[in-house]
Amino acid sequence: MSSLPPSLIGVDGGGTRCRFALLHHGQRFEVQGGPANLHSDRTAAIATLHQGLAALAQSAGLALPDLAAFSAYLGLAGVLRPETAAEVLRQLPLQNAQLEDDRKIAVTGALGTQDGTVLGIGTGSFFARQTAGNITLIGGHGLVLGDEASGAYIGRRLLQLTLHSRDQLRPETDLTRRVMAHFNQSPAAIIDFAAQARPRDFAQFAPWLTDSAEDATARDILREGAAFISRALDALGWQPPERLCPVGGVAAAYRPYLDPRIAEAFSAPDGTALDGALTLAASLPSEPRP
Amino acid sequence: MSSLPPSLIGVDGGGTRCRFALLHHGQRFEVQGGPANLHSDRTAAIATLHQGLAALAQSAGLALPDLAAFSAYLGLAGVLRPETAAEVLRQLPLQNAQLEDDRKIAVTGALGTQDGTVLGIGTGSFFARQTAGNITLIGGHGLVLGDEASGAYIGRRLLQLTLHSRDQLRPETDLTRRVMAHFNQSPAAIIDFAAQARPRDFAQFAPWLTDSAEDATARDILREGAAFISRALDALGWQPPERLCPVGGVAAAYRPYLDPRIAEAFSAPDGTALDGALTLAASLPSEPRP
Repeated sequence: MSSLPPSLIGVDGGGTRCRFALLHHGQRFEVQGGPANLHSDRTAAIATLHQGLAALAQSAGLALPDLAAFSAYLGLAGVLRPETAAEVLRQLPLQNAQLEDDRKIAVTGALGTQDGTVLGIGTGSFFARQTAGNITLIGGHGLVLGDEASGAYIGRRLLQLTLHSRDQLRPETDLTRRVMAHFNQSPAAIIDFAAQARPRDFAQFAPWLTDSAEDATARDILREGAAFISRALDALGWQPPERLCPVGGVAAAYRPYLDPRIAEAFSAPDGTALDGALTLAASLPSEPRP
Repeated sequence: MSSLPPSLIGVDGGGTRCRFALLHHGQRFEVQGGPANLHSDRTAAIATLHQGLAALAQSAGLALPDLAAFSAYLGLAGVLRPETAAEVLRQLPLQNAQLEDDRKIAVTGALGTQDGTVLGIGTGSFFARQTAGNITLIGGHGLVLGDEASGAYIGRRLLQLTLHSRDQLRPETDLTRRVMAHFNQSPAAIIDFAAQARPRDFAQFAPWLTDSAEDATARDILREGAAFISRALDALGWQPPERLCPVGGVAAAYRPYLDPRIAEAFSAPDGTALDGALTLAASLPSEPRP
């Protein structure tokens, strides 16, 4: 037996981009690839994963087949079913790999093995609590039916409330006027945009909200999001002073809108989702199963 | 000059089906055709309109070119821009026609020329008030950003709250259990369905809500819808005892959830949107413009 630690592969795959990491002979290599949305385009996603793994091998001076026996953990957005995971894994050049959706890698990256709760709020959203090694998950169901409080959700809500302001259902504010200007004063242009928009297209408006704390429309939307976060924390059984890690580009923006007992528990995550994927890879048996 | 009244054509076109009517020599002819969604498939929609007009001519013993000079009014779902209307009209065998979205024909059909307010709530939703011949419109922006309280909106909301009940964010009820059974206890199946669903696919669940008045989930969703209706009526300036016409398959179901002052003003519409299209056709100049 070698005294070297096992070589590990971690993948954090999302609809915008994928990150690949390799720990090998004490060195860490990282590469980035394109989007991998298994839900909307599985063939393209598998091609992206292949390319990323090949680039990862190359960065470490290895050939792609060298990776086959390494322990690998892949967390990919939009993996709804174990059958999907198994089918994708069969098409990858990895023999000792596990594939799940991308929530667990985020939790493990943020908390390691410690207890705590994660507010995963980026383009999408999910909420997770880890206690004694068990993870309970809420949300992560996608924008059509869920992803409440997420960047995509609040961006879409801004467009909706802008239409409401045009219909005299609520007052115009600087922010709704900014949206109307962006769409050349045309409600039809907003509706056309929304009909084609993917979550990340709606999420482009999230910074408009999080940077406009003085605006009544922004405040209403972020308060709605904060109320949902509080409900999720209650459902998970979170209580202060348990650690609460904001993860994703939007989570921290809710801090001023949350009950002070919640805001005070905010704590920076230990690491990224990619770190979490490597940690989970290390927990796999180091030899391929027979 | 002939003493006969002018021949009139009315069209009520929607994403599910189109209705065509012809008043000719004192007789009324009607035919139905397939869907005409100008937003998602303009070529197919124009073909549907051609076929419907041809069938209408045939039903009256006329040839298609005979219709050209008749006054025609077409109300079609999803016409967001005047340019779209002009382009579609140029491709139809009608020389004296007007085309708009389908809200005005619904109002004219329901109210004629009288004052009143229309709750247009079927698969989609809109709210309209007619005073002294002027119509003010709210909503009708489509399901992604609007159509609040509509059949599609409340059907989608039922699926969302069913996922919430699975996430322990709210209690299960008979209705959420019925949804879970319909989808074989699989949240992934609900999410897959929603990713592909058109408004009418979500709207198939609306009767589950409107027929379940005792269920807490149904009540919560219908109360939200009723609250939006009240806001829309306030924004339109509606006051009792002004007439309030429910139009569309869902509107009347809100009656028990509305303030009694509102519910008491409910009044059956005078006619259908197709009747409204014929009335509006009669208001066009009877000869083609030069």
